[in-house]
Amino acid sequence: MKPIQALIFDVFGTLVDWRTSIARESEKALSPCGVSIDWLAFADAWRNQYQPAMEEVRSGRIPFSKLDFLHRRNLDVVLAAYAIDVDEAVRQDLNRAWHRLDAWPDVPGGLVQLRRHYFLAPCSNGNISLMVDLARRNGFPWDAILGAELARDYKPKAVVYLAAADAFDLEPAQTMMVAAHSADLAAASAAGLRTAFIARPNEYGPDTGESQPATRVDFSTSSIPELAALLEPTRRS
Amino acid sequence: MKPIQALIFDVFGTLVDWRTSIARESEKALSPCGVSIDWLAFADAWRNQYQPAMEEVRSGRIPFSKLDFLHRRNLDVVLAAYAIDVDEAVRQDLNRAWHRLDAWPDVPGGLVQLRRHYFLAPCSNGNISLMVDLARRNGFPWDAILGAELARDYKPKAVVYLAAADAFDLEPAQTMMVAAHSADLAAASAAGLRTAFIARPNEYGPDTGESQPATRVDFSTSSIPELAALLEPTRRS
Repeated sequence: MKPIQALIFDVFGTLVDWRTSIARESEKALSPCGVSIDWLAFADAWRNQYQPAMEEVRSGRIPFSKLDFLHRRNLDVVLAAYAIDVDEAVRQDLNRAWHRLDAWPDVPGGLVQLRRHYFLAPCSNGNISLMVDLARRNGFPWDAILGAELARDYKPKAVVYLAAADAFDLEPAQTMMVAAHSADLAAASAAGLRTAFIARPNEYGPDTGESQPATRVDFSTSSIPELAALLEPTRRS
Repeated sequence: MKPIQALIFDVFGTLVDWRTSIARESEKALSPCGVSIDWLAFADAWRNQYQPAMEEVRSGRIPFSKLDFLHRRNLDVVLAAYAIDVDEAVRQDLNRAWHRLDAWPDVPGGLVQLRRHYFLAPCSNGNISLMVDLARRNGFPWDAILGAELARDYKPKAVVYLAAADAFDLEPAQTMMVAAHSADLAAASAAGLRTAFIARPNEYGPDTGESQPATRVDFSTSSIPELAALLEPTRRS
């Protein structure tokens, strides 16, 4: 079996805590407008629009659009549902909240460890500028920004994983997808990639995320440094 | 005028000395096969096939192919012209010489300076994996790898510059193309980008490169740190 040469990462939920970050940023943007709501519930409501919006692209009903564009459409839907009316500038700033998410504490150090031995890139549905801002904010040491915008389609479509492996000139089996979500890993595996599961049990609040993978994976662990330790014996160099 | 927020870079000739690097790598690969030739002339002959090969893609005569693929086709042409017959493994290794180019000495430090204030990416005709290898080798601190492979066409087509600006969510006028070649800068300028010329007078051997821009540019300088100093008064933050 050919050795793994690149690791590609899911980002929302796997590397960054989108939920408490979006709740914080929403409060910061909307409370000066007199809004007082359950901010975590607001973050969840916004995130609930995520898959249906991408499905519009995956199904071909709308052409590929950056996630920033879909997030903004979703924000307008959620604000309407909450009967919150704020002006365009507030909406634009709030939509950029997705560029201001904080990493889970283990991530930056873990990625620096992994980078010594592997090429690293995000393989996220987030657009390139969003990934660049998260990398600057959190110190993610990416070799390249891969994912949906390069492939011009959304995970879990196979093309997104395959485009990432191809960008590194690797076969799918030389590339490992790292994610906290079984559906993402099952799709990567079906496309021929190797897979590592990271447990993020608190992704949607205490004990709400996946603590075990629901699909067969090559590695299952609870943090990025633990993944680096697990990979140690498999390395060729 | 909106401030510049991202700098995108030509790489071959502007940031790396492809000519002496390719000569060195060609000697390393071919001299064990008993080949003894003028290695700089060989590097020039290989590079001479570069524009015609990309023109096949730009004109639509062949579909987009990574530069590694075009370099390999060109290598076979040049080896045939030199009546050098070496086996497939040697050809494959030699073709990777383009992943092992050395930076001009001013570049790594200059990019680190610029990165404090601007987003940075290559906007090269080289493919993503090639750019990643050059970045690892030379310590280029890129935020993302943009350029031909993202745009699926080759400079000086406008789409390559525009795709790079768009990936950063910037207007063309907020993005500056940095290059040692007037044709590259003229095309970027025509696409609405701002431009900086870096003199690399020794690109093709002593006193052979452009020492002055042959087109109107926003900045003209002789090194990356000098560019950083020139940009200093224009910065907003």
